[in-house]
Amino acid sequence: MATATQVTDASSAFQPFLADEESIAKPLETTQCAVAVPEKIHRAMRYSLLAGGKRVRPVLCLASCELVGGDESLAIPTACAVEMIHTMSLIHDDLPCMDNGDLRRGKPTNHKAFGEETAILAGDALLSLAFEHIATKTTKAVSPERVVRAIAEIGSAVGSLGLVAGQMADIQSEGKEVTLRELEYIHVHKTAKLLEATVVCGAIIGGAGEGEVERLRKYARCVGLLFQVVDDILDVTKSSVELGKTAGKDLASDKATYPKLMGIEGAKNFAARLVAQAAEELAHFDARAAPLYYLANYIANRHIEEQFLPFFTKI
Amino acid sequence: MATATQVTDASSAFQPFLADEESIAKPLETTQCAVAVPEKIHRAMRYSLLAGGKRVRPVLCLASCELVGGDESLAIPTACAVEMIHTMSLIHDDLPCMDNGDLRRGKPTNHKAFGEETAILAGDALLSLAFEHIATKTTKAVSPERVVRAIAEIGSAVGSLGLVAGQMADIQSEGKEVTLRELEYIHVHKTAKLLEATVVCGAIIGGAGEGEVERLRKYARCVGLLFQVVDDILDVTKSSVELGKTAGKDLASDKATYPKLMGIEGAKNFAARLVAQAAEELAHFDARAAPLYYLANYIANRHIEEQFLPFFTKI
Repeated sequence: MATATQVTDASSAFQPFLADEESIAKPLETTQCAVAVPEKIHRAMRYSLLAGGKRVRPVLCLASCELVGGDESLAIPTACAVEMIHTMSLIHDDLPCMDNGDLRRGKPTNHKAFGEETAILAGDALLSLAFEHIATKTTKAVSPERVVRAIAEIGSAVGSLGLVAGQMADIQSEGKEVTLRELEYIHVHKTAKLLEATVVCGAIIGGAGEGEVERLRKYARCVGLLFQVVDDILDVTKSSVELGKTAGKDLASDKATYPKLMGIEGAKNFAARLVAQAAEELAHFDARAAPLYYLANYIANRHIEEQFLPFFTKI
Repeated sequence: MATATQVTDASSAFQPFLADEESIAKPLETTQCAVAVPEKIHRAMRYSLLAGGKRVRPVLCLASCELVGGDESLAIPTACAVEMIHTMSLIHDDLPCMDNGDLRRGKPTNHKAFGEETAILAGDALLSLAFEHIATKTTKAVSPERVVRAIAEIGSAVGSLGLVAGQMADIQSEGKEVTLRELEYIHVHKTAKLLEATVVCGAIIGGAGEGEVERLRKYARCVGLLFQVVDDILDVTKSSVELGKTAGKDLASDKATYPKLMGIEGAKNFAARLVAQAAEELAHFDARAAPLYYLANYIANRHIEEQFLPFFTKI
């Protein structure tokens, strides 16, 4: 089990990823969505893909690859691909007929900046580029078997039993009484599935055994749900300027959220339990798991109180 | 070079595909978009995927696989995947902010039947399912190298330098004077790229050599362009009932089309030249190319006059 010292080491080891994103920003910048003809579609893709964001998914993917003994560079194309898919899901979710968002990452949403038709097409292009990117950019040091398995994992996380299922259930739940179980279905699919695929694919690319893959899958499910619970909490506690997107939308649209069903304190306690479960899965790995501990905690704390920090040092 | 007799044989050999689609309808029916939770998204996906259509792409994919010596069953997952992507492109193209179509394959368009948000999500799900389907359903008899190559080829055909580029250029051309060169750019990207990937992937899966792949690529480019030229001709010559979609839309929206730039006769002559070029590439293959000859001709003739039939028997 990792000690507090190891965790502190990891915290500083992990900082470069979150600070200047050296490992991810450059590869993303040089993906095939460099400015080309037709310019407008490429500008729209780059606008959202390179808008910053926390890059939590790519960082998780690289950390997972290293944890199982792979060199992180092997997983860079997959990490970029997952960020493209995440970006596509934000672009499409923000559309007028979906969540009708005006702000994202502190800037006008893609359809506000480029028009609805371009936003839809930019999402489509990012989704297909993601698969193409894994297939063409993964180095020969990774066997094609692993590449095919990663593509299958990501495809399943995005499709009608994954991210799309979550968004569909979310839309259908609006204006209805939603149970905690239904809310969990939405978040597991809308957020956790892609995070799970991200971590699992990092591990597959890095050459993980089946047992390792399954532990990391469970870890990622907790972190994925945690991510959404914290997002729900932030929506009711922070302003649009602080969030970089329209705040209070969930409340205004009477959307089901964890704070609504559990109260703010209940939601915060649930988040703490998820961090603990995630940590339990990581306890079976060696000190290389430290960045993943750190990330679970980072997600739990990103803009809210320091309440999770004491927990973190207890691991 | 194939003789007239061989071609006639092929014509009857090919008929079953076009008539009852045995090779494609069943695999499509049993793809992962069986009715599951959430039901609405799966019903929307099936509504468009199983709406009939000519299944030209999957048939081309299987024929190309057989032509290079592969068993057609090897290419069935790829053939289904291409049909999913084609279906997704129709669903998204029909959206109100794009072509705003009401009818498709004789039925209300997806967004008319299920709502705009479901139509967008059904498209997204079909696109990711396509890649997942190739990755998970292709039999072990096909090497993972070939699977990865097919995924890369299809990804590139759909993305911002393929289908999406064509749709973007198409949207941007509305209300503007478009040259013949610009029109060709639109159609090569909007239609021919995916057809090219379809044929090329069939060949890759079937184990084609590089020379065979390149000849089939050229064949498919001609057929892809041919497809669009004929579509443009039909838009001005047929009624909505005959087409199964809204007719005269291109004319009403003052869209650039081949008949508009070349006149109907000019467009028909161009179609005939494309059939001839396609046939030239096939002349380097043996009698197994006959279905591909037949298909080029079938596309040229589908609802219009019999003028191409004499050409066909001359091959």
